[in-house]
Amino acid sequence: MSNTRNILFIMCDQLRADYLACNGHPTMKTPHIDKLADGGVNFTRAYVQAPVCGSSRMCFYTGRYMFTHGATYNGVPLNVGQPTLGDHMRELGVQTGLIGKTHMAADRSSMERLGIDPVSKNGVLASQCGFEPWERDDGLHPDQYTDPNLPYNQYLRSKGYDGDNPWHTAANSGRDENGELQSGWLLRNAHLKAEVSAEHSETAYMTNQAMEKISALGDTPWCLHLSYIKPHWPYIAPAPYHNMYSEADILVANRSSAEKENPHPVVDAFMGHEESINFSDEDKRKHVIPAYMGLITEIDDNIGRLMTFLEQQGRLEDTLIVFTSDHGDYLGDHWLGEKELFHEESIRVPMIVSSPETRVQKKGTVSESLVEAIDLVPTFIDALGGEEKPHLLEGRSLLPFLNGETPADWRKAVFSEVDYAWRGARLSLALSPDETRGYMIRSEKWKYISFDGFPPQLFDLENDPNELEDLGQRNSHAEICKDHENRINLWIRKRKTRFTVRHDTIEEKTDNARERGIFFGVW
Amino acid sequence: MSNTRNILFIMCDQLRADYLACNGHPTMKTPHIDKLADGGVNFTRAYVQAPVCGSSRMCFYTGRYMFTHGATYNGVPLNVGQPTLGDHMRELGVQTGLIGKTHMAADRSSMERLGIDPVSKNGVLASQCGFEPWERDDGLHPDQYTDPNLPYNQYLRSKGYDGDNPWHTAANSGRDENGELQSGWLLRNAHLKAEVSAEHSETAYMTNQAMEKISALGDTPWCLHLSYIKPHWPYIAPAPYHNMYSEADILVANRSSAEKENPHPVVDAFMGHEESINFSDEDKRKHVIPAYMGLITEIDDNIGRLMTFLEQQGRLEDTLIVFTSDHGDYLGDHWLGEKELFHEESIRVPMIVSSPETRVQKKGTVSESLVEAIDLVPTFIDALGGEEKPHLLEGRSLLPFLNGETPADWRKAVFSEVDYAWRGARLSLALSPDETRGYMIRSEKWKYISFDGFPPQLFDLENDPNELEDLGQRNSHAEICKDHENRINLWIRKRKTRFTVRHDTIEEKTDNARERGIFFGVW
Repeated sequence: MSNTRNILFIMCDQLRADYLACNGHPTMKTPHIDKLADGGVNFTRAYVQAPVCGSSRMCFYTGRYMFTHGATYNGVPLNVGQPTLGDHMRELGVQTGLIGKTHMAADRSSMERLGIDPVSKNGVLASQCGFEPWERDDGLHPDQYTDPNLPYNQYLRSKGYDGDNPWHTAANSGRDENGELQSGWLLRNAHLKAEVSAEHSETAYMTNQAMEKISALGDTPWCLHLSYIKPHWPYIAPAPYHNMYSEADILVANRSSAEKENPHPVVDAFMGHEESINFSDEDKRKHVIPAYMGLITEIDDNIGRLMTFLEQQGRLEDTLIVFTSDHGDYLGDHWLGEKELFHEESIRVPMIVSSPETRVQKKGTVSESLVEAIDLVPTFIDALGGEEKPHLLEGRSLLPFLNGETPADWRKAVFSEVDYAWRGARLSLALSPDETRGYMIRSEKWKYISFDGFPPQLFDLENDPNELEDLGQRNSHAEICKDHENRINLWIRKRKTRFTVRHDTIEEKTDNARERGIFFGVW
Repeated sequence: MSNTRNILFIMCDQLRADYLACNGHPTMKTPHIDKLADGGVNFTRAYVQAPVCGSSRMCFYTGRYMFTHGATYNGVPLNVGQPTLGDHMRELGVQTGLIGKTHMAADRSSMERLGIDPVSKNGVLASQCGFEPWERDDGLHPDQYTDPNLPYNQYLRSKGYDGDNPWHTAANSGRDENGELQSGWLLRNAHLKAEVSAEHSETAYMTNQAMEKISALGDTPWCLHLSYIKPHWPYIAPAPYHNMYSEADILVANRSSAEKENPHPVVDAFMGHEESINFSDEDKRKHVIPAYMGLITEIDDNIGRLMTFLEQQGRLEDTLIVFTSDHGDYLGDHWLGEKELFHEESIRVPMIVSSPETRVQKKGTVSESLVEAIDLVPTFIDALGGEEKPHLLEGRSLLPFLNGETPADWRKAVFSEVDYAWRGARLSLALSPDETRGYMIRSEKWKYISFDGFPPQLFDLENDPNELEDLGQRNSHAEICKDHENRINLWIRKRKTRFTVRHDTIEEKTDNARERGIFFGVW
């Protein structure tokens, strides 16, 4: 019998798997996250199903692959017909809410068609991806679009940070040597100390909000999605995190000049993006990455605060805790910036799962099993004793791993998808908005990538773990490519688009028309 | 400028393409349907996207393939997130309603989740596949499940047909030589004269309802889906249709003994179904088919009444008329009964489209272009001057054909899908409910069928138009199979699951984050 009554689902944004000390980073300081791993299972081969914020999150929240749920890029509404984590949790009597970011875009067109009032209870849930918006804050607030009532801005103003948008001018800006305020939106300012103090930073504020909410919930079972915007850009950190790391602390860029010689056409197009060009410049990379690292340690310190709080509240005894991220960050590796393509830097994320039982046993384990982001919804349902939903959910429960078991029929590969219709790459490749799909399969030894309309990519992860040599067009590897292309096609054919009927209902109704009074072909 | 203001979308149920005189049947009498073809375009290679009632209809009504919309069998709810014909029509100011059958199952689970009251205006539309249910009647009423308030039963009682369920006891039963009432549900009774008179039959009644509604609508633009249950079983016809045809009038069964020798495993399993066994018996086949034919001529006579009425009302001058069916009927061909598999008898349907302009020009044409059921939604939108929706609709407008043009880039193949999870075949093949998908591509010369987990089927339609020789496992045809398997896979990859955003919105937003105040990777 599990003691889990609550779920704390912590997500960072743009945090690479390898930027944690417990995952082997040689200079990162993440003692509290490391401690979480020590009391749970650290899945070191966990992959997102879409390496871009909104789409990845919709996979996390629906338990379904990206081209199954259809929200294939930031700003693409998740269709109201897609059930989400909150729906499954509420069925189990668990209050489910959000503090932080989801990147959900409401499907207003369907809501209008179906007469769902956006401010009604159901309308709010449909607009917020099934979460009660305890505090929705997507963490990116350009001056011209900022809601004047943004709670974090109100908070900052109450702490003396003035202006229309202190999120920008205090939390995400810093002063240069002349005392001029400079925007953290620009990479050149990544070395500056943010105007905001660490205790008033967005990361600290969201942590505070989470603790308040957990207190207020008392003994009501809850599922809290605490979703930090950091270490996502703007890359600018408050003291002491802004200069905690230096050039000397950063990893050597994972790239080779050979990669630029004859790149895959889609990769080539991404290499032409502004963020790739800038992160390809070693000086700029060295300028920015220390801030990225500082933001991670800042999160780590707040995880420490949060764990102390949970312990004090007795919540460590009945709460399943997950720590993960929505995708990684190239940071100049492979001559790329941002994410969206399928190298490990982009798609592999931290995935630490810790339960009341694993914490008591202090049996921190590392699992190299192939794990997908879509496994979390089934894991949460399983942890709370709910029923499997194999007609709908495309992921699988990770709970057996917490009990020290690896299911015999565990998956042999993970998948991820991209839709780059919105990117400059589409224009430079002269594609229409429906010619921009890419699919990845990562099996034990191989990573194979199939872009619509282009030759494939293939990496040998055993012999080339840094993915510096694309074998996709080598005759020597044609059979490997063909095999993995087949696996991708078989997987695509299995999409769970038939999800309005349960498997047990089908079993009950199979071949029983006659019992229902329907006679066909009966003499 | 088109004169079309209204759409009359007539559907039969289980009517094979080749059971119309205008499509070459040597003995069928269908003069009014033939006349409709003479004033329009008769598409003789029109295919349904799913050879089973509910799923095929959901394709017709959404303009999307079966495993895209997910309602893959009768009774599988169409997810509320899927827009339908009625939604598109209402956007254009056209009242859209149903008289007859849709086989729609409401997605009650989603409606409950979203707080949509099933009896509210939007709730009714969501429950009725987007149609205003002017008179919903799915036309199959087993005694134990019949709604006592079924309007057609009330009508029958008002005409003196007594009983709890005169749909069954009058419209679908007949008296044997001893004067005993016998149920039309049983094939053995197909030769009897239905108790109901032709003027009170379901076909005549629905035609009356349509005429009344069209009168009542006056000059309001409308889209009426007149959806007959016949010639679907129960195979029993009122006089004079019950004995209008005899054994001598029926087509020779399209089957060969070779087909039974080494059938494809899935086909073999279907051959084991009761309806296949019964229709394989030549005596039973001869007993039933004349009733099927009579029911078709009955529909034809009612189409005649309806056309006369439309002419009198002036509606022929402003109404686009479509005559089609949701799928065919094996009737013993290939040793099969019913439908669901992919032979021409099952998937090819009548598709006659006639506009005010084609009728005036009397330019009846026959088109052999490959047409899909999902083309109708785009056709109707096009005919009323609406905008294309290539982000959502998987079919294409047929309007150019009405203007005598064949688009240069017209499709080179059609597709159809099946999900036989509910059938006895699944049990005899020992499959789970998610291992029962099949996909068909019919190109100009070939028909290729790919069932999950089984070898393929292949027919050479040029040299074997009757599909008696399955080449799917011949080494000689391995390359053809491979090519068509690839085409199926490419098509599956193109499913329009990303349908909550329009292509022009994507175009507008491509590569313009900076203009929206979002700076990423900017130095």
